[in-house]
Amino acid sequence: MLFKVEMEVVVPHDIDGDVFEKIKEKEKEYAQNLQSKGVWRHLWRIAGEYKNISIFDVESIDELHNTLINLPLFPYMNINIVALCRHPSSIHEDDR
Amino acid sequence: MLFKVEMEVVVPHDIDGDVFEKIKEKEKEYAQNLQSKGVWRHLWRIAGEYKNISIFDVESIDELHNTLINLPLFPYMNINIVALCRHPSSIHEDDR
Amino acid sequence: MLFKVEMEVVVPHDIDGDVFEKIKEKEKEYAQNLQSKGVWRHLWRIAGEYKNISIFDVESIDELHNTLINLPLFPYMNINIVALCRHPSSIHEDDR
Amino acid sequence: MLFKVEMEVVVPHDIDGDVFEKIKEKEKEYAQNLQSKGVWRHLWRIAGEYKNISIFDVESIDELHNTLINLPLFPYMNINIVALCRHPSSIHEDDR
Amino acid sequence: MLFKVEMEVVVPHDIDGDVFEKIKEKEKEYAQNLQSKGVWRHLWRIAGEYKNISIFDVESIDELHNTLINLPLFPYMNINIVALCRHPSSIHEDDR
Amino acid sequence: MLFKVEMEVVVPHDIDGDVFEKIKEKEKEYAQNLQSKGVWRHLWRIAGEYKNISIFDVESIDELHNTLINLPLFPYMNINIVALCRHPSSIHEDDR
Amino acid sequence: MLFKVEMEVVVPHDIDGDVFEKIKEKEKEYAQNLQSKGVWRHLWRIAGEYKNISIFDVESIDELHNTLINLPLFPYMNINIVALCRHPSSIHEDDR
Amino acid sequence: MLFKVEMEVVVPHDIDGDVFEKIKEKEKEYAQNLQSKGVWRHLWRIAGEYKNISIFDVESIDELHNTLINLPLFPYMNINIVALCRHPSSIHEDDR
Amino acid sequence: MLFKVEMEVVVPHDIDGDVFEKIKEKEKEYAQNLQSKGVWRHLWRIAGEYKNISIFDVESIDELHNTLINLPLFPYMNINIVALCRHPSSIHEDDR
Amino acid sequence: MLFKVEMEVVVPHDIDGDVFEKIKEKEKEYAQNLQSKGVWRHLWRIAGEYKNISIFDVESIDELHNTLINLPLFPYMNINIVALCRHPSSIHEDDR
Repeated sequence: MLFKVEMEVVVPHDIDGDVFEKIKEKEKEYAQNLQSKGVWRHLWRIAGEYKNISIFDVESIDELHNTLINLPLFPYMNINIVALCRHPSSIHEDDR
Repeated sequence: MLFKVEMEVVVPHDIDGDVFEKIKEKEKEYAQNLQSKGVWRHLWRIAGEYKNISIFDVESIDELHNTLINLPLFPYMNINIVALCRHPSSIHEDDR
Repeated sequence: MLFKVEMEVVVPHDIDGDVFEKIKEKEKEYAQNLQSKGVWRHLWRIAGEYKNISIFDVESIDELHNTLINLPLFPYMNINIVALCRHPSSIHEDDR
Repeated sequence: MLFKVEMEVVVPHDIDGDVFEKIKEKEKEYAQNLQSKGVWRHLWRIAGEYKNISIFDVESIDELHNTLINLPLFPYMNINIVALCRHPSSIHEDDR
Repeated sequence: MLFKVEMEVVVPHDIDGDVFEKIKEKEKEYAQNLQSKGVWRHLWRIAGEYKNISIFDVESIDELHNTLINLPLFPYMNINIVALCRHPSSIHEDDR
Repeated sequence: MLFKVEMEVVVPHDIDGDVFEKIKEKEKEYAQNLQSKGVWRHLWRIAGEYKNISIFDVESIDELHNTLINLPLFPYMNINIVALCRHPSSIHEDDR
Repeated sequence: MLFKVEMEVVVPHDIDGDVFEKIKEKEKEYAQNLQSKGVWRHLWRIAGEYKNISIFDVESIDELHNTLINLPLFPYMNINIVALCRHPSSIHEDDR
Repeated sequence: MLFKVEMEVVVPHDIDGDVFEKIKEKEKEYAQNLQSKGVWRHLWRIAGEYKNISIFDVESIDELHNTLINLPLFPYMNINIVALCRHPSSIHEDDR
Repeated sequence: MLFKVEMEVVVPHDIDGDVFEKIKEKEKEYAQNLQSKGVWRHLWRIAGEYKNISIFDVESIDELHNTLINLPLFPYMNINIVALCRHPSSIHEDDR
Repeated sequence: MLFKVEMEVVVPHDIDGDVFEKIKEKEKEYAQNLQSKGVWRHLWRIAGEYKNISIFDVESIDELHNTLINLPLFPYMNINIVALCRHPSSIHEDDR
């Protein structure tokens, strides 16, 4: 079950730099773990912005929700979710 | 070189139904041809809307532009383009 | 699997009145059939607008999509979808 | 008398974590009490956001207002209210 | 029970002038009847626009809805509704 | 001369609670004084929001402006003003 | 009493050209008459758009309203009104 | 060469009151100097808001820019600029 | 004197194809003439949209306005204008 | 490969003035270096705003992204990117 997820990171200008670096390290580890499991199926950076666009493949909406609210950067993110389905003109086996 | 492209189709309510069906058939053929060439790398339908989200892999912005304005449904579309680049946390080989 | 769906009907002012009445009759029948099957779990009218808010309970996003694009009024609708999950403070058994 | 209420919680990034946890506990107790009374009829979490969608069943607008401004999280919330009425195609007894 | 209702009239430029004049006459009669019954409690024109702001006093949301969808100009209107309650600083007996 | 005025109060989350309570007391006194003079003709609370909708009856725009910028809560308010005039369908003597 | 008024003209693409030219001639005559009376105190064209920005000096909101709805181009206009008052730093005698 | 300029002042709620008063005094002196030179041709306050609407008459865009960024309140302002030209229906000699 | 101009062309779906082709030919000739004169200094197509971004170099706002409203495609365009000035960090001789 | 980039600088009102001046100096040096290399092909200031509009000429989206996120002012910027291609009516050799 596929969802497009866009995540924008908004960094408070007065946050402690070291604290934020550690959160970003945890975020990276968390994201790569989910990618290797196949849950976080695609991950791109939007050029010139602190924003990504991702495709998640989950068993349920609850799984999607729990995955997202446990992102180490979640408290600093604006998240936008769109439910996807197979396009009738698609020939790609994995776009479903 | 990757771009996220969102295409929304707006059908005029007084258009001739048969004419529109033929345009849609051409659109499908055109889209599948580009998918098999690897240019139209991903194609999903947004649930409940006459809208898709796509990932294009092109050699240049001119190629992207020419590909899009030649879509049979182009005159009925609102198109939105976002330039993508590799995310530093990505482990997927093909997300670039 | 729950989704909130908001449907706004936009009636072209020059449409044939009888034709539109027939579409609305089919819409009602279609909607009531889905309600009795438990797929269209809730349906309210937004006061003063030609708009409803609904809760759908489906097995997959594809089921949601196919259900919506087959609405007799679909060509005249703007549709907005939000994925829902169980709220940690909820005590209602059926709000999941 | 039914109202759809959407509540978004905006957490100031420099708030004391313990203080906020206590507010959230009170919120949960307050919300569950209203649910068992039948006033807060439905409560769902919007996936991936700190936001819920709720259906309130109240005797008057004053009751709705007083219920909402006494939410422990009210000072951190953006609230949006829509008045609902029975849909002519609805077959659900309790959607009124 | 009070609601603020804003109604904007959008006149299609190719509508028959005489037909529209008759609708407007019916609208006036309908509006004045509701005013004398106390349901349409206040009615002001927004300067320079084809738009009014009104205060309705109804027994229920259903009454509000039925009143509005039976407006002769309803098919040409954008309607926006806001639920009102007594302000704690108000001294006016009838602002409730 | 009538104006609809909508006032939204935005409370900074780190303001001193006692200081703010005193400003609110002054606001209430100020508002009730203007109501008894007939300048602040109507005052309603928008349900579930820290926002009111008011009707002001003033001799001039300068009087309106001076009245508003002297509101004790003015520094914490977003204010929106709309000029009103008599509606041709109105039968209320005081809606002018 | 001063109001800033912005008027945008939206021309339906299928309107009869001659008819529209006559409306524009009447508009010009109407506008110049009001300017010579001092009611339409300033009138500028916004560069590159079919839009003007104007300053009206009227005795009442009703006068403003009647002046605007009688503009020959009124049915093709979007109008936006802002109430103005003397700025405390202004030294211009006529900016009031 | 005329430009409409709208300036909104946003005061941070935790700024030192005395410091801000001094900035406002300098702003007034600066604004009056430009008015007497004919550069700041009109200046009105928008009723009920901390916002003005102005007409500037400058020799070049660079002059406009340098005038605006040297406003003492510039760091607290949102500024919006629109290029104006003579309206074909204008009879005012100075509206150019 | 430089202005950034963005022009979006909106084609009515029921316009005569041949008529529109002739307008586009005139537009091209008109645009190339202005480019060779140095008035239309830059012209780019926005990828995937019927929209351009241009830089105009004019003697006055009136010249800019007259140039734009005489575009053959002007009746089908949404135009947006921004006044530009030399950037203090610019080293390009012609970016002024 | 050309991109239009708009950069808006948002200065936190409580930032240390000296620190910010140093960042701006580095920004200037960084920008001028990229201009002399031909990457930052055009740079204009938007009149009256702390905002620029730029044209970048890069080999790839990754180059664009890396160039932008290394701007010394990047943490204080809102950035908006649009992909450009040659306009069929363009006669300028370098607008590609």
